[in-house]
Amino acid sequence: MYAFSLYKAYSMSLLKCINIINLAVIAYYNYMYNFLFWFPPLPTHTTPSCSPMLHTHTHTHTHTHTHTHTHTHTHTHTHTHTHTHTHTHTHTHTHTSDRRMAEGFLMEVCVDSVESAVNAERGGAGRLELCSSLLEGGLTPSVGLLQVVKQNVKVPIYVMIRPRGGDFLYSEQEVEVMRRDIQLMKSNGADGLVLGVLTEDGRVDAELCMELLALSRPLPVTFHRAFDMVQDPEAALETLMSLGFQRLLTSGCDCSALEGLPVLKRLVKQAKGRISIMPGGGITERNLQRILEGSRAQEFHCSARSGRDSAMKFRNSSVTMGASFSAPEYGLKVADASKVRNLNAIARNAM
Amino acid sequence: MYAFSLYKAYSMSLLKCINIINLAVIAYYNYMYNFLFWFPPLPTHTTPSCSPMLHTHTHTHTHTHTHTHTHTHTHTHTHTHTHTHTHTHTHTHTHTSDRRMAEGFLMEVCVDSVESAVNAERGGAGRLELCSSLLEGGLTPSVGLLQVVKQNVKVPIYVMIRPRGGDFLYSEQEVEVMRRDIQLMKSNGADGLVLGVLTEDGRVDAELCMELLALSRPLPVTFHRAFDMVQDPEAALETLMSLGFQRLLTSGCDCSALEGLPVLKRLVKQAKGRISIMPGGGITERNLQRILEGSRAQEFHCSARSGRDSAMKFRNSSVTMGASFSAPEYGLKVADASKVRNLNAIARNAM
Amino acid sequence: MYAFSLYKAYSMSLLKCINIINLAVIAYYNYMYNFLFWFPPLPTHTTPSCSPMLHTHTHTHTHTHTHTHTHTHTHTHTHTHTHTHTHTHTHTHTHTSDRRMAEGFLMEVCVDSVESAVNAERGGAGRLELCSSLLEGGLTPSVGLLQVVKQNVKVPIYVMIRPRGGDFLYSEQEVEVMRRDIQLMKSNGADGLVLGVLTEDGRVDAELCMELLALSRPLPVTFHRAFDMVQDPEAALETLMSLGFQRLLTSGCDCSALEGLPVLKRLVKQAKGRISIMPGGGITERNLQRILEGSRAQEFHCSARSGRDSAMKFRNSSVTMGASFSAPEYGLKVADASKVRNLNAIARNAM
Amino acid sequence: MYAFSLYKAYSMSLLKCINIINLAVIAYYNYMYNFLFWFPPLPTHTTPSCSPMLHTHTHTHTHTHTHTHTHTHTHTHTHTHTHTHTHTHTHTHTHTSDRRMAEGFLMEVCVDSVESAVNAERGGAGRLELCSSLLEGGLTPSVGLLQVVKQNVKVPIYVMIRPRGGDFLYSEQEVEVMRRDIQLMKSNGADGLVLGVLTEDGRVDAELCMELLALSRPLPVTFHRAFDMVQDPEAALETLMSLGFQRLLTSGCDCSALEGLPVLKRLVKQAKGRISIMPGGGITERNLQRILEGSRAQEFHCSARSGRDSAMKFRNSSVTMGASFSAPEYGLKVADASKVRNLNAIARNAM
Repeated sequence: MYAFSLYKAYSMSLLKCINIINLAVIAYYNYMYNFLFWFPPLPTHTTPSCSPMLHTHTHTHTHTHTHTHTHTHTHTHTHTHTHTHTHTHTHTHTHTSDRRMAEGFLMEVCVDSVESAVNAERGGAGRLELCSSLLEGGLTPSVGLLQVVKQNVKVPIYVMIRPRGGDFLYSEQEVEVMRRDIQLMKSNGADGLVLGVLTEDGRVDAELCMELLALSRPLPVTFHRAFDMVQDPEAALETLMSLGFQRLLTSGCDCSALEGLPVLKRLVKQAKGRISIMPGGGITERNLQRILEGSRAQEFHCSARSGRDSAMKFRNSSVTMGASFSAPEYGLKVADASKVRNLNAIARNAM
Repeated sequence: MYAFSLYKAYSMSLLKCINIINLAVIAYYNYMYNFLFWFPPLPTHTTPSCSPMLHTHTHTHTHTHTHTHTHTHTHTHTHTHTHTHTHTHTHTHTHTSDRRMAEGFLMEVCVDSVESAVNAERGGAGRLELCSSLLEGGLTPSVGLLQVVKQNVKVPIYVMIRPRGGDFLYSEQEVEVMRRDIQLMKSNGADGLVLGVLTEDGRVDAELCMELLALSRPLPVTFHRAFDMVQDPEAALETLMSLGFQRLLTSGCDCSALEGLPVLKRLVKQAKGRISIMPGGGITERNLQRILEGSRAQEFHCSARSGRDSAMKFRNSSVTMGASFSAPEYGLKVADASKVRNLNAIARNAM
Repeated sequence: MYAFSLYKAYSMSLLKCINIINLAVIAYYNYMYNFLFWFPPLPTHTTPSCSPMLHTHTHTHTHTHTHTHTHTHTHTHTHTHTHTHTHTHTHTHTHTSDRRMAEGFLMEVCVDSVESAVNAERGGAGRLELCSSLLEGGLTPSVGLLQVVKQNVKVPIYVMIRPRGGDFLYSEQEVEVMRRDIQLMKSNGADGLVLGVLTEDGRVDAELCMELLALSRPLPVTFHRAFDMVQDPEAALETLMSLGFQRLLTSGCDCSALEGLPVLKRLVKQAKGRISIMPGGGITERNLQRILEGSRAQEFHCSARSGRDSAMKFRNSSVTMGASFSAPEYGLKVADASKVRNLNAIARNAM
Repeated sequence: MYAFSLYKAYSMSLLKCINIINLAVIAYYNYMYNFLFWFPPLPTHTTPSCSPMLHTHTHTHTHTHTHTHTHTHTHTHTHTHTHTHTHTHTHTHTHTSDRRMAEGFLMEVCVDSVESAVNAERGGAGRLELCSSLLEGGLTPSVGLLQVVKQNVKVPIYVMIRPRGGDFLYSEQEVEVMRRDIQLMKSNGADGLVLGVLTEDGRVDAELCMELLALSRPLPVTFHRAFDMVQDPEAALETLMSLGFQRLLTSGCDCSALEGLPVLKRLVKQAKGRISIMPGGGITERNLQRILEGSRAQEFHCSARSGRDSAMKFRNSSVTMGASFSAPEYGLKVADASKVRNLNAIARNAM
């Protein structure tokens, strides 16, 4: 038993070491990549309009050079590839930037239909996260949906790249699906991308992220709520910043942003504006103020949905299309003495 | 249109008048009941052991004479009926009281099995809320469950009186079920009861409460989360205090105690110790401290459950017993422009 | 490996032996019980009104003496204990019998509220299965519910004895809850009981059944859908018949009676009228005829429910009371090559 | 009241007239379209091989020369861009035909991941229906998923065109999404398409179908389970055949193919091979034989999935990503006297 815990402690510290080395390598790679290959576009970096999110940060807090670098380079890259695309991109950013400059924050609405996209813009959303199936937490939408939403909406559209529901550990084939969808969304006018990949031990899959970020360039990329499944949020955030993600969508590793508020607050503090922490998950009119004040985040993410009755007049009530859920037959839920004990201890301390 | 709104305003004020008169009558009735018929036991009221919850309040805030009266009667009443019963009852209360005196708060755990009841006590629960089917939010348990839990557990057991799932508007027949179960639970050793009834317009059904409280005497009665469905929480709380409920279990009229924290805080302030506000609904080890500190409540309610795998070795995975849920076929969820707008406005104000 | 499978084969055959011996002992016990202690009431057995279900069987198939014995005895037994009870009992049976004689079958409706009970009788149900929480598949109801339903309904009421949701492997304390509830329901006018207990290896827990059946006497007892979770339906049915259950509620070990129709048919054939096989689980107006014709069962069980909108005029849509379900985070569903292969093979054979 | 029903009868007959005229127009249009614009391929069109399903019916088993041919053509396809499409089509059909000729039936497996696609082929699926989110009943997949599945699988891939979950009444913008996705899927190698659109009164939206079918040409198109929501299945089937759909995926307007078996049987009879009726919805190893024998269908559709545990070693059990379901707060389920009555009547007739 003792031997085992010793071994565990040893392997944990080893893991940490590897992690640190990994991050160092990534940071170095990122740094070299920016300076060696992306050198020319640097001057543009003074234009605040290029990065919608970081703009505010630079003003509020302090200057975040390294980060902005990445972004500026992005533009050059695009120029060499597709002309029109860059145009849209710039437009979008200015737009966002305007909106944000006036209001000091940004609201992202996740949508999975044209109707929702139009409603979100009409209500004042500053950005859309475009998905398929919010029921499943958001999956990669079809290109058709992106094209039509783009025609009907002016705010920037960030496209979800998630090949299936469930966990965030992907097979090589699933990664290949992601690669192709990234390229398709880029060439069809996405203003940004949203993705997240983990290793089986609950860390950000840095190597894969690096590859996908390179593919996504010049688009800004948000790391999504896969983050809420990591083992060590603090370390994971450092990884994301080193990798060059613009934004982190998170509920503070809990089931909703309100539940994860203490973690969200710590993440915002830790980020120091180097990455935008965007709270999301169960945000409603009743809890938004607390989440913003509690976390000191500068943007937030929500679906702002309400149920709408179908316009169908004839209805067949005996048929349903999707999956159904029921209480698991072989899983009982019982009060847990140690949970009771912990709650008791917390209450004692709180009083 | 104008005529209608005038009519509405008129009827609303009328409703309020009736409400005020109702409350006055109830308060008077309560007052008279306590002083006229329950006078003798007053002396005992100095013993803190009689009322687990109010004890703390009397210390912290001010003396709540009328209320405690009720309790003292309890003992006398019981004596006339069954000897042993009173004994257990007294024991329990002292126990609770001890626990609470030492710790300054009380933890209630809702359970729907003997296993959970035993675990809850082992973990340090100060009181149990005994239900059937927590899956359905808690229903009236069987008397057999009460009897066996009583044999295995020493802390006070408050029994849920809820004849079916769904709303809290009951037919006369359903009320009759409640009446009979109140009497059965009383005569089988329940230490307290938990119930809640509303009118169709979302108010506490004061008349029915009065009757059920009378039937429940001398047991302390908690008004449960039916409260979270009322139209006007402030008015509803006044009604409950006038009626003589010892305790209100509530999530602050929201989907969880954390979500409803601002309302919980207002309720605790409004109650001024005249009734115990007990937060409940989704309380976990991660949010308890915030809920207690934010609401300043002196007790809380949780289930503290964790999943336990069945001990069955042979399993038939193709069969499930209960109901199943699926996404409604004719209900679409779409982003709502006004919801987006409201969230935007809240964010603007919060910054 | 080989040694293990040998051991396994050995232990399996041992288990079977024990099972056979068990059944022999049970059968002998049952036989002796009937003849030694219940001898006197035999004459009454000619009255067809005593056993609602078996009556039809005797006519249709052949005479099932042994079984009917048990029932007849029941009456005597009751006589010696509580007078009024027997009265109700007899009344009920005659009623049922009448209904069944006229129609040749019997419809049992499971209900969890007074409203449902009244509607079921009005619609022509021949028997009620009274539960709490059909959402959870049916649990032991409160005695108050039984009392009020009895006042409002004339058809026989069989009461569910199930101390909690989930599997059917009960702890000693849970069995104690069942024992007490059996006695309470008997003394409060239940016309029959419904229960089911299994061993961890998926067999009927014969020993426990014997004890619970003895406690339930003189009431007829239905073994419920716990049967659908057994490993070997054929062996389980033999056990149930040996034990003296009057009736088996089953969906043919599948998720609905229609799905389990082939198994249901086999069970009816195997039973040869010695026990009534009552199909239940997802029976609707669209599949009932097929189920009855396919299984040749003489009675069936359904809930015949439709959604009814709440009468509440004020509604707080942000709050729900019970549990919620969502797709499991760490459980993926993928096409299974062997399942595909099996389906292919079945299709090939069917063509 | 009488006037109203007269009016209703009148309008219903008017609707029927319009329907008949519509169908005539559609049939004529279809006929002309085939003969005027598709003249060259006509010779082949008389060959039953153009319709994968019907082929088998008439010929059952013959030679399939084209198979190797096609493959080479595919390559040309990419070069020339538009022409070869028809070729791919032929490929698909020939392929299918091979498999079907040997076995006399065809199994379609719906998949929403590469893993499932590969497993389905390995297990012997003759065709895939490629979707996103089977949880939501299947939505339009991403082009990336189609591309990667195509690389890993040889059987024909039919792509779902469904822009969102819920009903099948689409806005003009949603139809635009469908149009674009149809074109994208065609140009990315889909072997067939799957779609379904209804009018608000529960009929097949013939006009829209005509347009979408024209866009889909030359790919074969399956009308999906939107059919299960129509008011008059018989009329709807006539419409689909007139419109030129190759195949109808249906559960017989019920919650599963087994439940809808009587309707499925009628549909197969009515179709007389003019359209392939493909049963789907809840097909398992336990009910497949009954469904095939009962319906006399020549192909079937299933997901053949089993749960697979995630490979994640670190798990955060407090977070879920997608939506959750719970029992509706304001919807009670009660036994319905008329349902009870109907069930009773059915049982009486069945005996």
